[in-house]
Amino acid sequence: MQAADLDALLVTDLLNVRYLTGFTGSNAALLVAADGEEESAFCTDGRYDTQSQRQVPDLRRVIDRPCDVALVAAAADAGIARLGFESHRVTVDGHTLLASTAPGVELVRAPGLVEALRMVKDDTEVEALRMACAAADRALADLIEHGGLRPGRTEREVARELEARMLDYGAAGPSFESIVATGANSAVPHHRPTTAVLRHGDFVKMDFGALVDGYHSDMTRTIVLGEAADWQLEVYQLVLAAQAAGRAALRPGAHVRDVDAAARDLIERAGHGDDFVHGLGHGVGLEIHEAPTLSRLGDGKLSAGMAVTVEPGVYLVGRGGVRIEDTLVVRDAEPELLTLTTKTLVVV
Amino acid sequence: MQAADLDALLVTDLLNVRYLTGFTGSNAALLVAADGEEESAFCTDGRYDTQSQRQVPDLRRVIDRPCDVALVAAAADAGIARLGFESHRVTVDGHTLLASTAPGVELVRAPGLVEALRMVKDDTEVEALRMACAAADRALADLIEHGGLRPGRTEREVARELEARMLDYGAAGPSFESIVATGANSAVPHHRPTTAVLRHGDFVKMDFGALVDGYHSDMTRTIVLGEAADWQLEVYQLVLAAQAAGRAALRPGAHVRDVDAAARDLIERAGHGDDFVHGLGHGVGLEIHEAPTLSRLGDGKLSAGMAVTVEPGVYLVGRGGVRIEDTLVVRDAEPELLTLTTKTLVVV
Repeated sequence: MQAADLDALLVTDLLNVRYLTGFTGSNAALLVAADGEEESAFCTDGRYDTQSQRQVPDLRRVIDRPCDVALVAAAADAGIARLGFESHRVTVDGHTLLASTAPGVELVRAPGLVEALRMVKDDTEVEALRMACAAADRALADLIEHGGLRPGRTEREVARELEARMLDYGAAGPSFESIVATGANSAVPHHRPTTAVLRHGDFVKMDFGALVDGYHSDMTRTIVLGEAADWQLEVYQLVLAAQAAGRAALRPGAHVRDVDAAARDLIERAGHGDDFVHGLGHGVGLEIHEAPTLSRLGDGKLSAGMAVTVEPGVYLVGRGGVRIEDTLVVRDAEPELLTLTTKTLVVV
Repeated sequence: MQAADLDALLVTDLLNVRYLTGFTGSNAALLVAADGEEESAFCTDGRYDTQSQRQVPDLRRVIDRPCDVALVAAAADAGIARLGFESHRVTVDGHTLLASTAPGVELVRAPGLVEALRMVKDDTEVEALRMACAAADRALADLIEHGGLRPGRTEREVARELEARMLDYGAAGPSFESIVATGANSAVPHHRPTTAVLRHGDFVKMDFGALVDGYHSDMTRTIVLGEAADWQLEVYQLVLAAQAAGRAALRPGAHVRDVDAAARDLIERAGHGDDFVHGLGHGVGLEIHEAPTLSRLGDGKLSAGMAVTVEPGVYLVGRGGVRIEDTLVVRDAEPELLTLTTKTLVVV
């Protein structure tokens, strides 16, 4: 805020509000004054009066709606001259409304300030991610141990069992719509579970995660049912090697494009560059996809404490595909692996 | 589009894209040309190449990212002069990027065009809502029948059982984070389930729904455990009467504020106006909250085919609260009730 010469920042992104205040309701905004807490204010609507009293005890509270308008008016009352707003979140129409609410306040684009803070996780956040990853690890271990992956079951049944088992291990829910893709479906990177039946010899690709205290885990494992064919072993080993290379490239100071390249180069050299149709990974935290983006188009460098996924894939349309994905935290030495399920090919 | 003299509309809201094309992936945009399909185009990224081939077979497909930029470039190539954009969704920064992509294209604010279409549901949509409501009805019936509501259980256990039972009845998942609130917690309108234990004499408020084919159901029921005290009966009967009045006011041509008032007036006359801290209801469909909004601040009139909730509540802080909510479709004669669980006070 000092760098942008802002008197205050209007935070309207709900997850950014949660990050800064701990408020977990579905409607809120926050005014952060540069010179301290006196002019700062938190706004929510009447539904959350009681809850916000408990969760946000230390800030001046405004109960009104819409919250962004109420806080811009409060900023005008407080004599704020330059008010930053989240121009990457505020819509064109929303901006017009804010500008008309307080013509005397200069609205200054200030995108991504809170997201930049959110990229580096503190210990409490990593602990939530660790619990979310553990719930997913345990769910998959139980699923396999109890014979949940077997010919005759449907993708949906497998997805549902994974999700139920994650709840058993403390998840508030799945962190996104689970992907379970069998046979040729495994070549669809973001396949949704159907009534397709698992068959002997299939790749079964499972991409899923748990939500714990608002934090998302993200893991993909691909197994083979019964017996692995040579082409399956070949694709699997390639993706496994690429994933290891991507993980090894995670270190403070590394450019995100170089991390992507570390994995992608291996896949391209094996002639499968066109079959790896997405980026290598993404930040993960209060959102399942957040900054930084590890891809050919990504920008910026890694820092210690960033939580990211590493998830190369090779997809052979009509045959099958493999993706192997971990959630990790960048550390000064080796990255800390949070998803602990083995990446050795499991044949069940 | 004709009224706004647009040559084309850029649809970037993902649910609006889904509504118009049937595409269910997580990244897409759509260019709708006013004069037909030739210049129209659908864009997604490489992850969804296979899926979009199947789901969007009839439109020119562009595989690129970001999709909005790709389609504005396509519009420029096609000689589009006036291009509408969803100014209620496109961010300030996003708009700047689009404007710089195609300086020759005039970007015209065109908010809410697709949402206006989405308010009135067709038969296929109502059928999806009906299935989503039925899954919730059945889950609650089973929960009660099997003794799932009893002293000693936690809010979280109840929420989880409701959600699991909805899956049994065909839900892809809960349509939002289920609310189960017991005792004094029931006075918190949007309470999240905790480890609080259900006790004899408690109000138990359950607000939950199912997701089926992308459509959301929404229902609240409040029951009493063991025996209802006089104050509980009084509050319940008041909310029940207000809910009936709200439902009776649902008819084509009714102003949304009048529908809200029909229920609110009863609660205010009983001296509980300040305890009804939210609007009466909202549209429901591909989003759990969508247009129209039935509240004191709402605008517009109802039409046949709109799907809405009616959900008055009275919340007595520190004691307990009641909300009763249905999902209904506005019809020429009586509204069609989709949530069929009884609203007579259930004491279990």
